[in-house]
Amino acid sequence: MKLASLKSGRDGVLVVVSKDLTRYCAAGNIAPTMQAALDNWDECAPRLEALYTDVEHQAVPCGRFHEREAASPLPRAYQWADGSAYINHVELVRKARNSEVPDSFYHDPLMYQGGSDGFLAPRDPIPLGDPAWGCDMEGEIACITDDVPLGTTPEDAAGHIKLLMLVNDVSLRGLIPGELAKGFGFFQSKPASAFSPVAVTPDELGDAWKDSLIHHPLMVDYNGQPFGRAQAAQDATFNLAQLVAHAAKTRNLGAGTVIGSGTVSNKGADGSPGKPVSEGGAGYSCIAEIRMIETIASGEAKTPFMRAGDTVAVDMHDEHGHSIFGRIEQEVVAA
Amino acid sequence: MKLASLKSGRDGVLVVVSKDLTRYCAAGNIAPTMQAALDNWDECAPRLEALYTDVEHQAVPCGRFHEREAASPLPRAYQWADGSAYINHVELVRKARNSEVPDSFYHDPLMYQGGSDGFLAPRDPIPLGDPAWGCDMEGEIACITDDVPLGTTPEDAAGHIKLLMLVNDVSLRGLIPGELAKGFGFFQSKPASAFSPVAVTPDELGDAWKDSLIHHPLMVDYNGQPFGRAQAAQDATFNLAQLVAHAAKTRNLGAGTVIGSGTVSNKGADGSPGKPVSEGGAGYSCIAEIRMIETIASGEAKTPFMRAGDTVAVDMHDEHGHSIFGRIEQEVVAA
Repeated sequence: MKLASLKSGRDGVLVVVSKDLTRYCAAGNIAPTMQAALDNWDECAPRLEALYTDVEHQAVPCGRFHEREAASPLPRAYQWADGSAYINHVELVRKARNSEVPDSFYHDPLMYQGGSDGFLAPRDPIPLGDPAWGCDMEGEIACITDDVPLGTTPEDAAGHIKLLMLVNDVSLRGLIPGELAKGFGFFQSKPASAFSPVAVTPDELGDAWKDSLIHHPLMVDYNGQPFGRAQAAQDATFNLAQLVAHAAKTRNLGAGTVIGSGTVSNKGADGSPGKPVSEGGAGYSCIAEIRMIETIASGEAKTPFMRAGDTVAVDMHDEHGHSIFGRIEQEVVAA
Repeated sequence: MKLASLKSGRDGVLVVVSKDLTRYCAAGNIAPTMQAALDNWDECAPRLEALYTDVEHQAVPCGRFHEREAASPLPRAYQWADGSAYINHVELVRKARNSEVPDSFYHDPLMYQGGSDGFLAPRDPIPLGDPAWGCDMEGEIACITDDVPLGTTPEDAAGHIKLLMLVNDVSLRGLIPGELAKGFGFFQSKPASAFSPVAVTPDELGDAWKDSLIHHPLMVDYNGQPFGRAQAAQDATFNLAQLVAHAAKTRNLGAGTVIGSGTVSNKGADGSPGKPVSEGGAGYSCIAEIRMIETIASGEAKTPFMRAGDTVAVDMHDEHGHSIFGRIEQEVVAA
């Protein structure tokens, strides 16, 4: 099924959305908000599924679904933890800041605790206080879990993945080196992120959901041009279940925990860091990567970070070319 | 006024507590939960204050308040960000892990994003998966804010501090060096924290709330013995308002954001790292500090980290010797 939160107050209003993203039906009689549904998922999910069937069959009155009226599926969440599962991304951004890929990377995921007190809506502008902060997008996959007990294994973690989304994890590259040098990880360098208009249950993906990875390309457009088309199931050192288990190693995870994949990134067929879409490659899901490629090729980065007026879109199509999650579309504005 | 969340479901039930912590009155007709009150603070606060006056005058029917029945004031929160404002703590723990105090420390606070999807109740046991993880307590002050706009100054931030609490920020010292070496900050090394049974408005502290610091000693007991008596207003490089402003530099903070001071720690009168309570000093609010003192004095740390059966208490008294926030009392148990 497909679920969304229409903008309303701090937490939105839970609605069930048709598979083709054109219609919705309010689900307030089942749960008022997405978080309320997740808090009581075992009871709510079958009822939401039944409503989804009715929406598909047009057996209930539906409204017209407009993606611009959707908040992020969880407009605010109790937890947002973002991994960095794609080795090509890790190698490129670490090279850019003269930092090594840690030896432990292949068995111990990189993950940071992100801010979750207020996410941007999928069509909200990205407020930027200072262009020198180096605003970047990061196209990623994210999942939402129910309650995950401390010590859950990767095998068991897969069953705790209840919903999937896309995310634009906004990063302020100019603030990252100074902040990481302090030793406590990201804080000011990770302002509010935006999620796709719709969250879907894994079964919606059919065969494209396998081994806790989504087997479709992530489509990132920058200023209206194709920028990234990286296969989300390729070159992932860790899948989403492994990332959930990593997060639960020393503590319980509360229902509604959002876990991200990190920036989706593919190596080239020859093992190189790949090529831009304009040169026939899979491109990149963030600007930092293409800047590193440019630096390797010509000695200097040419693509500037985002400034007021620049736009980014993140989307994913099914095998018929239809958007699965709806489209994140954001413009940077001066704050 | 003093507010608490009695244990009930995921978010507790909001109650107003008498100044002496003996009585409570349910506040459900004003706001069902602490978060709901914070979401609508300007409207709820005057009504809660009026109820507090009635509770003090015994003008409303009250129940007996038992601290063991209280959850953390926010049983789960949308944001928990912890600073590290006390230079003595920063110097000692960094020395213990052969890490430098960053040059920027005196003008740019250290702060990490913590997990907030589920806090321990103030009398809950601390579940520990493996004694080798090096379980430690950290006694701290924390505040809860309303909505704080991006770019708020320290001067303006003070007015956004709506409630104050104590916190035991549980840390797994054995996991910290490996995790920080990966560069993304704390994650597995910071399991769920516990907050004091009661949150209080700053005016409850009278003259002891000055310059966004609490001018009382923080009382930390370990296994029933006084362990820390550090003055919370002393040796703080940053006050709570400065920490709130730091958090809001690049993004809005949502209502119900919890910001911590970091481990309260005093230098000795001679500028040394101070002495244990048993030797007439102000002692320490975490075990890592005393271990470093022992290492300096004798070449090796003698006090082990916490194991199953060890107990910690965190409390703070007013000038008459009465507990202000109620008492955090926790025992470590094998998970």
